[in-house]
Amino acid sequence: MVKTSVSVVVNGYGVIGKRVADAVLRQPDMRLVGVADVVADWRIKLAASKGLPVYASTADRVSEMAKKGLKVSGTLEELLRNGAVDVVVDCTPAKVGARNRELYEKYGVKAVFQGGEKHEVAGVSFVAQRNYSEALGRQFVRVVSCNTTAICRVIGGIHEKIGVKKARVVVFRRAVDVWESSRTGIMNTVVPELQVPSHHGPDAQTVIKDLDIVTMAAKGSHNLYHLHMAMVEVRSKVTVEDVLKVVEEEPRVIFVSGEDGVDGLNAIFELSRDLGRPRGDLYEIPVWKDSVSVSQDGLEVYLIWATPNESNVVPENVDAIRAITELEKEARASISKTDEYLGIVKRVY
Amino acid sequence: MVKTSVSVVVNGYGVIGKRVADAVLRQPDMRLVGVADVVADWRIKLAASKGLPVYASTADRVSEMAKKGLKVSGTLEELLRNGAVDVVVDCTPAKVGARNRELYEKYGVKAVFQGGEKHEVAGVSFVAQRNYSEALGRQFVRVVSCNTTAICRVIGGIHEKIGVKKARVVVFRRAVDVWESSRTGIMNTVVPELQVPSHHGPDAQTVIKDLDIVTMAAKGSHNLYHLHMAMVEVRSKVTVEDVLKVVEEEPRVIFVSGEDGVDGLNAIFELSRDLGRPRGDLYEIPVWKDSVSVSQDGLEVYLIWATPNESNVVPENVDAIRAITELEKEARASISKTDEYLGIVKRVY
Amino acid sequence: MVKTSVSVVVNGYGVIGKRVADAVLRQPDMRLVGVADVVADWRIKLAASKGLPVYASTADRVSEMAKKGLKVSGTLEELLRNGAVDVVVDCTPAKVGARNRELYEKYGVKAVFQGGEKHEVAGVSFVAQRNYSEALGRQFVRVVSCNTTAICRVIGGIHEKIGVKKARVVVFRRAVDVWESSRTGIMNTVVPELQVPSHHGPDAQTVIKDLDIVTMAAKGSHNLYHLHMAMVEVRSKVTVEDVLKVVEEEPRVIFVSGEDGVDGLNAIFELSRDLGRPRGDLYEIPVWKDSVSVSQDGLEVYLIWATPNESNVVPENVDAIRAITELEKEARASISKTDEYLGIVKRVY
Amino acid sequence: MVKTSVSVVVNGYGVIGKRVADAVLRQPDMRLVGVADVVADWRIKLAASKGLPVYASTADRVSEMAKKGLKVSGTLEELLRNGAVDVVVDCTPAKVGARNRELYEKYGVKAVFQGGEKHEVAGVSFVAQRNYSEALGRQFVRVVSCNTTAICRVIGGIHEKIGVKKARVVVFRRAVDVWESSRTGIMNTVVPELQVPSHHGPDAQTVIKDLDIVTMAAKGSHNLYHLHMAMVEVRSKVTVEDVLKVVEEEPRVIFVSGEDGVDGLNAIFELSRDLGRPRGDLYEIPVWKDSVSVSQDGLEVYLIWATPNESNVVPENVDAIRAITELEKEARASISKTDEYLGIVKRVY
Repeated sequence: MVKTSVSVVVNGYGVIGKRVADAVLRQPDMRLVGVADVVADWRIKLAASKGLPVYASTADRVSEMAKKGLKVSGTLEELLRNGAVDVVVDCTPAKVGARNRELYEKYGVKAVFQGGEKHEVAGVSFVAQRNYSEALGRQFVRVVSCNTTAICRVIGGIHEKIGVKKARVVVFRRAVDVWESSRTGIMNTVVPELQVPSHHGPDAQTVIKDLDIVTMAAKGSHNLYHLHMAMVEVRSKVTVEDVLKVVEEEPRVIFVSGEDGVDGLNAIFELSRDLGRPRGDLYEIPVWKDSVSVSQDGLEVYLIWATPNESNVVPENVDAIRAITELEKEARASISKTDEYLGIVKRVY
Repeated sequence: MVKTSVSVVVNGYGVIGKRVADAVLRQPDMRLVGVADVVADWRIKLAASKGLPVYASTADRVSEMAKKGLKVSGTLEELLRNGAVDVVVDCTPAKVGARNRELYEKYGVKAVFQGGEKHEVAGVSFVAQRNYSEALGRQFVRVVSCNTTAICRVIGGIHEKIGVKKARVVVFRRAVDVWESSRTGIMNTVVPELQVPSHHGPDAQTVIKDLDIVTMAAKGSHNLYHLHMAMVEVRSKVTVEDVLKVVEEEPRVIFVSGEDGVDGLNAIFELSRDLGRPRGDLYEIPVWKDSVSVSQDGLEVYLIWATPNESNVVPENVDAIRAITELEKEARASISKTDEYLGIVKRVY
Repeated sequence: MVKTSVSVVVNGYGVIGKRVADAVLRQPDMRLVGVADVVADWRIKLAASKGLPVYASTADRVSEMAKKGLKVSGTLEELLRNGAVDVVVDCTPAKVGARNRELYEKYGVKAVFQGGEKHEVAGVSFVAQRNYSEALGRQFVRVVSCNTTAICRVIGGIHEKIGVKKARVVVFRRAVDVWESSRTGIMNTVVPELQVPSHHGPDAQTVIKDLDIVTMAAKGSHNLYHLHMAMVEVRSKVTVEDVLKVVEEEPRVIFVSGEDGVDGLNAIFELSRDLGRPRGDLYEIPVWKDSVSVSQDGLEVYLIWATPNESNVVPENVDAIRAITELEKEARASISKTDEYLGIVKRVY
Repeated sequence: MVKTSVSVVVNGYGVIGKRVADAVLRQPDMRLVGVADVVADWRIKLAASKGLPVYASTADRVSEMAKKGLKVSGTLEELLRNGAVDVVVDCTPAKVGARNRELYEKYGVKAVFQGGEKHEVAGVSFVAQRNYSEALGRQFVRVVSCNTTAICRVIGGIHEKIGVKKARVVVFRRAVDVWESSRTGIMNTVVPELQVPSHHGPDAQTVIKDLDIVTMAAKGSHNLYHLHMAMVEVRSKVTVEDVLKVVEEEPRVIFVSGEDGVDGLNAIFELSRDLGRPRGDLYEIPVWKDSVSVSQDGLEVYLIWATPNESNVVPENVDAIRAITELEKEARASISKTDEYLGIVKRVY
């Protein structure tokens, strides 16, 4: 019998978790059973005030959370035990997901992990437009990080259509998330990742196995959006127009332009808020059209894009749910549904 | 004959203008005729792509704007001349509004100015919950700046209910707006306003005539939300509970709490995005409940709040339209409508 | 017998410790025996490479520090035991000094603590120009924090010469120090201290017992220099000139001016680097001359200054050594020596 | 007759100019005749208060500068006319130097321009350790920008000793200088240079003609030091040790290490202040030793360094003076003198 709807719980109601929860609520073929967390601050209280059933991720947190005035509907394990859940989207902090895997195995529930976990946690690392079919029917899948997702969308498209000989990408990361910027930020500095290559390159290879890529990374003194600068050696001569066409065809990649006044990450954030999505989110990767360049010999491509770190993996999580539950067998069908329900577009203006 | 609906145009589609335009669109008793501007960057292109009629604020900008691929429906003056507009909300940059006043007089159209203009431009400076009736039926009204609005809401409430002997407020301003943070920002510094008192105190007195207040100000190295620290000598002994009650009763003032994890402007921004308003806006003034204190003798009150500079004057603009057009005769009735249509609340969680 | 020279060790070679060590090296009546710390990072390695004897603050750190390639001359306790030290300047992190006190008592050595410790640790809290004589001959003294020192210099001077009825000071703090800005900073936010009054007011009262003062504080998104905004009710009518005269007379307070282009903390830092002191340090409190204002009734004074948090307590530490060892009996004599050897001036240009 | 000493004037007393002036003062074979500028803010007033003769760069500025209380010794042209100057170091803002060239030609005076000018202004672009001899005896020479100087030092060394096939460098620039951070900064954003390649690559080729290099650049939200990330294809197989050896041999390049706690630009700035140079300057290029890596096939080298933008070109300016005046015929002799008098080292600790 084919499933036409699945029940989802989100474990970890942080930056990614709350966005995935809201995105699941907008999918007609999904039902959000509840959200789970271990704290009871304003974020989870707001979820409760919106009517979302809140569970404790672990039994030892129930009393503490209740004591802070939060209505706790039970523990995640109780919820899994009673069979109400088809898929857990695990958005807990890095490494915690790996420990949770045992729980999901115990109750035979499917799970989507995030990029903070290692590839081995799920065995399949996922970017919808690259390897949807690889995740079909699997118990576990890992949606790669925002940075790796962005690389797989943009460089992956160039690799499929033109052929990449070697890609070099430098990632200028936002230092910390907005909500935690009152504690663990960096100030008036750049902090490089001294290990070269950074993990992003090898991580992209868990999705696109034959991609030759090396990455370097540094944290900048800003808390929203990563900036990627790519230098891509290609296998055949191309023109700027060739590259623009390939990038334009990719789902969830859009163009912005310095000529229109979009001159920095701040302008992209202002633009994304104007688009009217929840929280001012941006699911697409905005590529600066006027940055796309080609070397004189036509064999190296340069381009710059922003990675909306809070939200660009949200549609991938939705697609990952469809893939592992086989709600949709084809990538394009799932992507198309997700994009429709989240309002994802190919042209922003 | 009593009007039951008014036609509005927004002149100046910037940080405030675009928000006022969207707010007008949500009022059943108002119709947005269009928006006017002088440039054709991504912001106004996005307005056009949403179907909003776009006008040139001045005739000399038409060709330039059209050349950049924007559909221009004509000039603002043409629109005013044909009688299609009851109210212009002038959200042009500081000082420009004063020059526009002549145009509005020429066509006998009513206008709402912003706090960047001087009090004299309109003769009435406006905060809905303080002096709505003063604006009734006037041709011109000036909605005061975000900072002054916040002071009038919070200190004004204490003044009305308890009586203020002397208020001292220090304003830590955001340096520049998000969209322009790629050009005119400040970095790793604080820039004080060397003129003491800063203009905020006298400006609050244009709304609350008998308020004794002095303000000092400085710009901080952040681009979102001002922070206000108030030291308020009151006319009679109070307790913390007295103050909390007064603040809680004020419209468009809410409590947040450090205990719940709201520890800085960043947390308030995260919270406001979670609330689900357009652009992650916050119309209310969030007062830190745990900052409210009273001196040992009960005669001085201390409190700290954030001023969401992009959006807290948006409901005032809507009320100002109702006041000058007499769509509503009573402050409370207008405030109540505005709050309903914009989703303004008294408790966020 | 009168001492004409004292031996000093600095315990804790951090932001303050390294500056105090260098300042002691410049005093002809003091001898720097060595510095002590618990880590062996580049900071202490640089001290060693300059030829400073380095000790382990605690015995359990010796092997770890030596393993990192640092030449460790022994433990602080060994040094104290052999009687080579007259004064320890304890610049260890807040609260650690309190624990170290026992060690100093055990060996009967005098000690200067910093403002991160409570007043009770020493019993005397110290600002040279306010209460030098109180510290004469004591075993322990506590140099108050940079913020409290600045308040005692500026407001203390007004109190002595004019008489303060009530002072209200708002402190806009730098978030963290430069060296740790890669880990624990704040980003694009302001973080208020929700407890009102902040600790600075009561702390100033440990030095100036009869000063009525209330303070509020917030951390800003910058890592260098605090900004203070003061509103001071005075006991008799004054003019701006009266205030300027009083401020000018205070030691270690200088004027800067917006008219000369000194418009923010960044300009003061640039100026301080141009002055040519070690590390670009500034020992004086720069008051913006053009910020000094008086209310219409002449009974309230307003002024704005910067507090060079890394270095303004350095001369106080030097004076504190002289006071407790009675190298100098008079405040003015010690201040004068310290200022000469550190190059402290009354006019910077 | 061989000159043994030259007279120098610095035109433009800004970030670079004031440092070059101080550096010239430290060279026994140079005499600083004075400095010239067009404004009279605190920076130039401080120069005057130190006893430096101050000239107006242009005649029309004399009265304005004098009116602000500055002692003006005359105009730059008068100074050049009376033959007192051998070399002008032109540190005026970009493009102004090109206009000044005519003046220098008129009086037959030699001049050193900065990297803000085009190569054509001087015809010779200069980095001491790369092409000193090319500048020998020339009337004009251009010291390239801080970024280009850094690239020429590090990549140039690898090119000379190992051979570079193709270098790719990404430059994360500081947005603006400290002193102007109160006006023209960027906030919580990254602003990419949309033109690819950025000008740095072609600019390096004006010094090292046969270097194949491509660069991309972006401005980050910090105001001190650039960060460079380099990916360098080399002509023969190398090991990490090979690369370390080559980098270590280069003059004015030093190693820092994340292991010692130098984890970001902030730590490098703290370190540079601890070194005790004027203004906390750093003349060397600090390369992170732990970032130096080599690809598996040994044919690509990765490394990360900081570029101390305020000061790393200061020694080059000194050497440029010696080269064009032929005070020294050999690069190594001039570099050695400059390094001695400025305290430049190969190991910082």
